[in-house]
Amino acid sequence: MTKPYVRLNKDDAAVLLVDHQTGLLSLVRDIDPDKFKNNVLALADIAEYFKLPTILTTSFEDGPNGPLVPELKAQFPDAPYIARPGQINAWDNEDFVAAVKATGKKQLIIAGVVTEVCVTFPVLSALEEGYEVFVIADASGTFNEMTRNAAWSRMEQAGAQLMTWFGAAGELHRDWRNDVEGLGTLFSNHIPDYRNLMTSYSMLTQGK
Amino acid sequence: MTKPYVRLNKDDAAVLLVDHQTGLLSLVRDIDPDKFKNNVLALADIAEYFKLPTILTTSFEDGPNGPLVPELKAQFPDAPYIARPGQINAWDNEDFVAAVKATGKKQLIIAGVVTEVCVTFPVLSALEEGYEVFVIADASGTFNEMTRNAAWSRMEQAGAQLMTWFGAAGELHRDWRNDVEGLGTLFSNHIPDYRNLMTSYSMLTQGK
Amino acid sequence: MTKPYVRLNKDDAAVLLVDHQTGLLSLVRDIDPDKFKNNVLALADIAEYFKLPTILTTSFEDGPNGPLVPELKAQFPDAPYIARPGQINAWDNEDFVAAVKATGKKQLIIAGVVTEVCVTFPVLSALEEGYEVFVIADASGTFNEMTRNAAWSRMEQAGAQLMTWFGAAGELHRDWRNDVEGLGTLFSNHIPDYRNLMTSYSMLTQGK
Amino acid sequence: MTKPYVRLNKDDAAVLLVDHQTGLLSLVRDIDPDKFKNNVLALADIAEYFKLPTILTTSFEDGPNGPLVPELKAQFPDAPYIARPGQINAWDNEDFVAAVKATGKKQLIIAGVVTEVCVTFPVLSALEEGYEVFVIADASGTFNEMTRNAAWSRMEQAGAQLMTWFGAAGELHRDWRNDVEGLGTLFSNHIPDYRNLMTSYSMLTQGK
Amino acid sequence: MTKPYVRLNKDDAAVLLVDHQTGLLSLVRDIDPDKFKNNVLALADIAEYFKLPTILTTSFEDGPNGPLVPELKAQFPDAPYIARPGQINAWDNEDFVAAVKATGKKQLIIAGVVTEVCVTFPVLSALEEGYEVFVIADASGTFNEMTRNAAWSRMEQAGAQLMTWFGAAGELHRDWRNDVEGLGTLFSNHIPDYRNLMTSYSMLTQGK
Amino acid sequence: MTKPYVRLNKDDAAVLLVDHQTGLLSLVRDIDPDKFKNNVLALADIAEYFKLPTILTTSFEDGPNGPLVPELKAQFPDAPYIARPGQINAWDNEDFVAAVKATGKKQLIIAGVVTEVCVTFPVLSALEEGYEVFVIADASGTFNEMTRNAAWSRMEQAGAQLMTWFGAAGELHRDWRNDVEGLGTLFSNHIPDYRNLMTSYSMLTQGK
Amino acid sequence: MTKPYVRLNKDDAAVLLVDHQTGLLSLVRDIDPDKFKNNVLALADIAEYFKLPTILTTSFEDGPNGPLVPELKAQFPDAPYIARPGQINAWDNEDFVAAVKATGKKQLIIAGVVTEVCVTFPVLSALEEGYEVFVIADASGTFNEMTRNAAWSRMEQAGAQLMTWFGAAGELHRDWRNDVEGLGTLFSNHIPDYRNLMTSYSMLTQGK
Amino acid sequence: MTKPYVRLNKDDAAVLLVDHQTGLLSLVRDIDPDKFKNNVLALADIAEYFKLPTILTTSFEDGPNGPLVPELKAQFPDAPYIARPGQINAWDNEDFVAAVKATGKKQLIIAGVVTEVCVTFPVLSALEEGYEVFVIADASGTFNEMTRNAAWSRMEQAGAQLMTWFGAAGELHRDWRNDVEGLGTLFSNHIPDYRNLMTSYSMLTQGK
Repeated sequence: MTKPYVRLNKDDAAVLLVDHQTGLLSLVRDIDPDKFKNNVLALADIAEYFKLPTILTTSFEDGPNGPLVPELKAQFPDAPYIARPGQINAWDNEDFVAAVKATGKKQLIIAGVVTEVCVTFPVLSALEEGYEVFVIADASGTFNEMTRNAAWSRMEQAGAQLMTWFGAAGELHRDWRNDVEGLGTLFSNHIPDYRNLMTSYSMLTQGK
Repeated sequence: MTKPYVRLNKDDAAVLLVDHQTGLLSLVRDIDPDKFKNNVLALADIAEYFKLPTILTTSFEDGPNGPLVPELKAQFPDAPYIARPGQINAWDNEDFVAAVKATGKKQLIIAGVVTEVCVTFPVLSALEEGYEVFVIADASGTFNEMTRNAAWSRMEQAGAQLMTWFGAAGELHRDWRNDVEGLGTLFSNHIPDYRNLMTSYSMLTQGK
Repeated sequence: MTKPYVRLNKDDAAVLLVDHQTGLLSLVRDIDPDKFKNNVLALADIAEYFKLPTILTTSFEDGPNGPLVPELKAQFPDAPYIARPGQINAWDNEDFVAAVKATGKKQLIIAGVVTEVCVTFPVLSALEEGYEVFVIADASGTFNEMTRNAAWSRMEQAGAQLMTWFGAAGELHRDWRNDVEGLGTLFSNHIPDYRNLMTSYSMLTQGK
Repeated sequence: MTKPYVRLNKDDAAVLLVDHQTGLLSLVRDIDPDKFKNNVLALADIAEYFKLPTILTTSFEDGPNGPLVPELKAQFPDAPYIARPGQINAWDNEDFVAAVKATGKKQLIIAGVVTEVCVTFPVLSALEEGYEVFVIADASGTFNEMTRNAAWSRMEQAGAQLMTWFGAAGELHRDWRNDVEGLGTLFSNHIPDYRNLMTSYSMLTQGK
Repeated sequence: MTKPYVRLNKDDAAVLLVDHQTGLLSLVRDIDPDKFKNNVLALADIAEYFKLPTILTTSFEDGPNGPLVPELKAQFPDAPYIARPGQINAWDNEDFVAAVKATGKKQLIIAGVVTEVCVTFPVLSALEEGYEVFVIADASGTFNEMTRNAAWSRMEQAGAQLMTWFGAAGELHRDWRNDVEGLGTLFSNHIPDYRNLMTSYSMLTQGK
Repeated sequence: MTKPYVRLNKDDAAVLLVDHQTGLLSLVRDIDPDKFKNNVLALADIAEYFKLPTILTTSFEDGPNGPLVPELKAQFPDAPYIARPGQINAWDNEDFVAAVKATGKKQLIIAGVVTEVCVTFPVLSALEEGYEVFVIADASGTFNEMTRNAAWSRMEQAGAQLMTWFGAAGELHRDWRNDVEGLGTLFSNHIPDYRNLMTSYSMLTQGK
Repeated sequence: MTKPYVRLNKDDAAVLLVDHQTGLLSLVRDIDPDKFKNNVLALADIAEYFKLPTILTTSFEDGPNGPLVPELKAQFPDAPYIARPGQINAWDNEDFVAAVKATGKKQLIIAGVVTEVCVTFPVLSALEEGYEVFVIADASGTFNEMTRNAAWSRMEQAGAQLMTWFGAAGELHRDWRNDVEGLGTLFSNHIPDYRNLMTSYSMLTQGK
Repeated sequence: MTKPYVRLNKDDAAVLLVDHQTGLLSLVRDIDPDKFKNNVLALADIAEYFKLPTILTTSFEDGPNGPLVPELKAQFPDAPYIARPGQINAWDNEDFVAAVKATGKKQLIIAGVVTEVCVTFPVLSALEEGYEVFVIADASGTFNEMTRNAAWSRMEQAGAQLMTWFGAAGELHRDWRNDVEGLGTLFSNHIPDYRNLMTSYSMLTQGK
């Protein structure tokens, strides 16, 4: 009767980045902008590093919501890019669902803006269809902590697993011996404390 | 064995506004007054915009609890208005339950003051009777965060879904193409950051 | 398949006050002392007002933990008073359990110091024995928020309902018409904002 | 050797509103947007209510900083409006200083975005020229509390007086008997708690 | 060139309690209501205990601001009571100033609601007239921390000393040997932690 | 249908200390360093005091992660010590799992750095294998509260019990009479408030 | 006209530790107990390390205030120890002042409990007498942040310099070359992060 | 008698970066690491952009304090670099003071780690020598807010001006027309919200 450990597996996972648009980002106030930007780019680096199929989608990018942040567009030039004409829940867009299904993956890693809408809605839809869903909570932002907490509650109740980008990286990598250099660089680029540890270490052991 | 997505549907939902009275509002200290007023009025605008049957109720409005805030009374002049003679749980009032049943809806969107009493009690009663219950957490206020958290815990355990007004609006609307202007105006009126985005956009694209 | 509303009923409930001792109270830092004192005395007034059987218990009251706060002893002179000789979980003390069973009640309202030990342990024991357990979270104190949150998690998982004293009072009273004066006085004594509302009201309607 | 009370006087004061532009407002994170919008509009209402000469100025309003929020433009259609071509410190703009001098007032009430630049710079310049300067701190916003605190420190050291809109209103009005209705309405429009008090009072004394 | 220690002296001090009215108290949100009520009553007990001349004043007590809290009226039945007909700054009311002068004291201990208006204005006026002014900051309340901080800044700049009720009590008492019992009781009534220390001590040394 | 109380039992429990390394500790920012150090050493003292089999493990201790904190190494010189060559989840290391199994215990008490990786991963693995898992949340640290909350959510969903070191000590000890001196000393060494209570008590009863 | 740097000098400074008593410590709630204990002991180590004359004093140590914490008594067995019979301001006690004068130092480093009384009062007295006064703010505790801030304001206005123990250590030491080992050990004992740095460094450079 | 505006002037200012070393950075806990790293690099970009003479200094960089963060070393390859052999106050190092004097500037912009030592000490020394000192508070870090506040108090009392990097940039630039592109890029690189504004603007006006 024990509960199975539903564990992220790099061969089973795809990444969905939902509505990280320049206008919508001004609504995000539950995470400091410097940190939030870092978290989103860290998740993007994870997707690229582990070669996870990645899907980009936006909502009304020609209007006040603004375009997708250019860094994401640049990092995934070949990713399916679904500019939704109106659907608020990305899962209501057939092209988006088709792109998800085309990945052939059963695990979905999702992040977006704002948490209770652009993340929660497709999370609930994907769970209903039987996907294993992992929310990258710190790459998802919203108006305030109350809004976030309510969104988390709803996703938890439905069976989503709440993670943050660092945990996802660790669970996907499994073993440092798979590539010390690569993961270390990723951490160094996104965790100032870790970068400092590496610099100190390197200075003492290699003199530079 | 996946969990169904119990999703707000504008054809299935009614709104219950419980005890937003001028005296009781002085007890609300878990949300800043400026923000709380905005959240309550945003929820009212949602109810009106989506033409959801709306029920108003108050507790002891002739005493220290004070009258219903006039804005709500003015916005829903034809809504059932149940001034409860004493029942603390609105669901213990037969007229209130009759009004709810008369809407013929199976989804109830509830907010009120204070969260752990005027919201939680009818939420638990409604769940017991089989309704799908959506709490608008940010249009519900109480003494402090501890009180709120305990109330949330009780409602979550019973199966209520915790939402905030922005998420409810998005889930009800489904697709911007249903009416860009209308929802945009609602957001502009209640989200200063969104209003700013719209103003900047409008200035750049229409010169005003 | 809906969930029944397990509702506090004044005929079914007993109150357990666990280890509100003068020494242990210096450990409580998750709630401000002025507020915490008020919350504990409000719960005591609820127990008295609704004539709920009440049981007092202490741990090592002759040592550094200190005596029970005198206000509680004075308010419940005839209550069973179990000075435990060593059991940390009050439920491990036979006299305590016997006193609980002697009340003949199936609902237990519990508060104490510190939350994760003196409250959580008997809560888990009582749930195991089939009681309906209601924790008065704001009359229970501990070292910090992290400690409290962990304790809440454990009690929630086991099926306890988290409440605060105001919610318990409302659920027990059911209808203001049962006694406006009595409950109003209780609220006035423990909620400064409510007292102010009542004073303003009284001045305007009775000129005093 | 006592210190004179440098007191706001409605006959001596002018209001400077600096760079409340739709783009720059997205930088403000030390005050919640709902509250900040309310504070700025309250200050505008004060300026209008006390008939204080008011000057509007913007920085680069055709670029990313965005246009002045339309509410301010609409409320002061005849106010001097200085769209600065590049000066970061409004006081470096000759037209702005000329407009200030044209008011003939010796007291300047200043608010703007962001606090440490658009407010602090002209505050320090105006103090240097001998004006009595009153900063409306809660109608001025910036990135975070640290930034704000540093700005406050600099302005305090230079002799500016830090106020908030409510205090300024009270100091300007001096005596309720000058106009109960007018100031009451202003407070009711910008302080939900005060509006509630007035509604309760009105209901009890006038039955509406 | 050292700075003299301007020290509270019970023979030189009077207490001014400004606008602690039931309606205005609903505006106070920078201090928790339980704690604030305790602080105000502690200051009142200090005034009575040290037999300091005390002056009560209110603003518009027949309107929404509400009556003075009854506890203060009851505790100082013979104190000058100035119901100001309209002056916002109590010092603009001749009767109030006359009452202050009639005390013949040079030190003024002031507290009130709200801090930046009802406290700050008379503080600045009294300083201008050469009084030594001591603000009891924790018996003075206002909308939020920003408002409080701005008010503190203004009063500090003008030379007021910021204190809290506990410090004032200690500075007035000078030596425990003047009356251990009396001051101990005052502390026990208003500091739960101190009461607990005294109860533990008493139990161990006197067995009760 | 009641839920059994899965209770820590000193005869059934082993302790797993995961990656408390000097480098990794610089990543911990959800708990203050003074407090966190105290919590970890308190847990170590609990393990030693109750003679619980204890297992130490580290990740990459020759690199930037740094060595195990020397206090732990010194306190458990004979404990199994698994310096993992690369596995991020300690449970993926066969020696670690073998060491756990060799204890013959069914209850695992786990703490480590960082919470969402070094704690959560082996917790989920151990639960899957049927162990009763107790997380010592306050001896586990991570980047920030959001990261911690997400980790807690995941562990709660899987059935782990969240505890803190003080609660674990109380549940393991069961009855003060088993050894007043020993547990009292442990508390005195790790809870300054408790130490103060004991010093005051000792002074009053033994004059020293 | 520049301001001289009044700098701590180990040959000119004495340390005054005021009322760090076991009972009074339960009143301290503006600093976490683990951290506060560490700060006080760090200051004691500084006094000992720099061989600064140190004076201990207590208030009513036979009553509820409790005895001096034993660690301080043990660390300074030969220090002047003034158990004040009643004076709240230590400077009102002739023996205390005599002990201060006997040190022959012009710089006083002061810390105590509670900040606004036991620290602030002697600070103001010592400044009046011309001493250079340095408050060790983080080894001084009080009820809450508001109380602390008011005490800081009063001490700043009178010319005291606010420091924390780490800054005092640095200013007294002047140059690491005076004794790397000694100061390093002091920091290692009281700053977990620094200890970790030293352990990592030592492991990499000395293999232990 | 007005106070002159002591204003940053790019021709008069030099930048001192003190002890931003990889080990010491692990002590910084009053600012989030992501934000702190950004602030330090923003200040470095300001120094480079405005071609301000810049001086780097470190304390014990071969020991646990660690090397200077490599980014700074790389950005200022030709800057005077004073690796202090032991002086805690950089101003006690003759080479450092000589380097400062060699710049010929009268305004010093200072930031460093930790605030109350490595920043405050040279700030006080420089003020004593008559320099105009501007502290970049958000590029200076320390243990916690209390430590920071005490350091700020000491520097304010001595006449330092507290600024943050954004304010310094604005005051140095004076007029956008001096170089829109350059300053805009600097802001875009260090303020995510500003970058988003620029991206939205650029998309709407240039379609990219």
